[in-house]
Amino acid sequence: MSRALRGLDRVNADTRARVLLAASTLGYVASPAASSLATGRTMTIGVVVPYVTRWYFANVVEGAEALCRSHGYDLLLYGLGEQVDVARRLTAIATLHKRVDAVLVLNLALDGPEVDVLRNLSVPVALVGSTVTGLGSVSVDDVQVARTATEHLIGLGHTRIAHMGGLAEDAFHFPTPHDRFAGYLGALADAGLPADPALDVYGGWSVQGGSAAMDVLLALPARRRPTAVFASSDEMAMGALSSARRHGVRVPADLSVVGVDDHEMAEYLDLTTVRQPVPEQGRIAAQLLLDELEGRTPRGGSSARTVSTELVVRGTTGPAPTPADPRLTRSHRSSPT
Amino acid sequence: MSRALRGLDRVNADTRARVLLAASTLGYVASPAASSLATGRTMTIGVVVPYVTRWYFANVVEGAEALCRSHGYDLLLYGLGEQVDVARRLTAIATLHKRVDAVLVLNLALDGPEVDVLRNLSVPVALVGSTVTGLGSVSVDDVQVARTATEHLIGLGHTRIAHMGGLAEDAFHFPTPHDRFAGYLGALADAGLPADPALDVYGGWSVQGGSAAMDVLLALPARRRPTAVFASSDEMAMGALSSARRHGVRVPADLSVVGVDDHEMAEYLDLTTVRQPVPEQGRIAAQLLLDELEGRTPRGGSSARTVSTELVVRGTTGPAPTPADPRLTRSHRSSPT
Repeated sequence: MSRALRGLDRVNADTRARVLLAASTLGYVASPAASSLATGRTMTIGVVVPYVTRWYFANVVEGAEALCRSHGYDLLLYGLGEQVDVARRLTAIATLHKRVDAVLVLNLALDGPEVDVLRNLSVPVALVGSTVTGLGSVSVDDVQVARTATEHLIGLGHTRIAHMGGLAEDAFHFPTPHDRFAGYLGALADAGLPADPALDVYGGWSVQGGSAAMDVLLALPARRRPTAVFASSDEMAMGALSSARRHGVRVPADLSVVGVDDHEMAEYLDLTTVRQPVPEQGRIAAQLLLDELEGRTPRGGSSARTVSTELVVRGTTGPAPTPADPRLTRSHRSSPT
Repeated sequence: MSRALRGLDRVNADTRARVLLAASTLGYVASPAASSLATGRTMTIGVVVPYVTRWYFANVVEGAEALCRSHGYDLLLYGLGEQVDVARRLTAIATLHKRVDAVLVLNLALDGPEVDVLRNLSVPVALVGSTVTGLGSVSVDDVQVARTATEHLIGLGHTRIAHMGGLAEDAFHFPTPHDRFAGYLGALADAGLPADPALDVYGGWSVQGGSAAMDVLLALPARRRPTAVFASSDEMAMGALSSARRHGVRVPADLSVVGVDDHEMAEYLDLTTVRQPVPEQGRIAAQLLLDELEGRTPRGGSSARTVSTELVVRGTTGPAPTPADPRLTRSHRSSPT
């Protein structure tokens, strides 16, 4: 009976269901502690994730989940939400102790104490979107992602290029926004273009946030307005498109927009983007954990892997408007100061 | 020290971080078992959810999370994935034992044994999207949602109306697709319209699935093709729009499309839809749990609540093409059999 309760046996589904029901009625529900005592394993992998609701995170998790499930592991998702201080994050990681056989951490820049607590869990750990010496990880080159997008816009003649990013506060320790901002600044600097702080806006990684951020950019005086936007996610780019349409700004004649991800809606919206493999990053990270759990890699022997990205040029980016462009002329006239 | 470890005290974040680090270094990491022994509470609420990656589920979870977090509770998300047999579901619920102070179950039609196991957890339980006598719940009237959408299409003169749903296999015990299919059939029957099984297609609740399902509908012989589609989610409706554009089918002149949700992209895509309050359903369900946990409602005293929905008519639905419509005439000529 205890083997059926732990779900380790190949007894059929009906038998397991009946045994579980009987056990539950007797107050003998399988508890993680009991299962752990018997087998030393929980058959559960913990996933620490900042925003469960964003397309990118949800799809990384889905990629990891499919592979873990096929190896008999469940995922325990631990969503941190948006307002997370360091102590909360430490607590979140520490509470995984004895609940999970391995931990997957998505897109958090871990500080020293966090890495120590993770190591003290004494289970395999893999990271997505960040790297720590001695821990397995998979990520894209976020600096290069931003460079690719920004250089595409520069190549089209744009000189006033906005950055729509996703970092509201430093406390989050979230590496991707920093790296993408750095790549954007690097591409501008290499082209000899100044970076205008008014063109750096927070888009909250969401369609709604991107739309509000674009509203802010379009409220700038005509001369200071951007002719192109690099958005750090396709969802923010979609919000920018939505705002542009509301304001009668033509894309790409008046405004070019490029995103990151190649979201499932990007092709339909004809959105230029830097494509990254998303569920695949989840799968690779899960494979690193399973290789350690199942003894194919020695504990702590996983390495850092980088997956490649690709510029996908579609219809939302085009040549910068020339000074003779009627919209610009009109805009300048309407604000003659 | 143990009070700081349990995170119950108002010690400042730095102190807690230092204590946690020190404890972790000594191998004295807070474990759920230890915390439970001391306080009887885990300050964690378990969430059982079918598809974490779908917009609706992610936003229900976000709504619940915000409220729970503000009351000091973390959410432990338990994603079931797509291939779930009854025994797995039972195991999933049973493993929440002693891990959580309360359980939120999203959009699963619970069978008898599952309800028994849930009750035997002896913690507050709330449901979203389904109802069980004696358990708190919040949902929309899914039959009415489908009726509203289908009647809107019938009112525009459509008689060949497809249903794009989300139920691949019965094993999932997922009530929403059944109820919406029933509402669609009911509206057709009331209008004296026959239901053609060829017009009932599986869209997998995703953009990609909706697009593939629309491909199937558009591959039907011209006479059997639908002039309108009721899609059970906006993501499937967006996929239908994508497929229609690829096939050169004009929306709404040749094809009307209505979805459900009012997804964050629906307005931008000018999609007609039946709007439901999504994060709000998560918040209401979380409030039911918190009211029981904090003693404002007696244990098991929560009730079933229904939130209202609303038809939002936008540009993807229009009058049915008349027999004189050039596309239909051309189509009939091209397949003269």
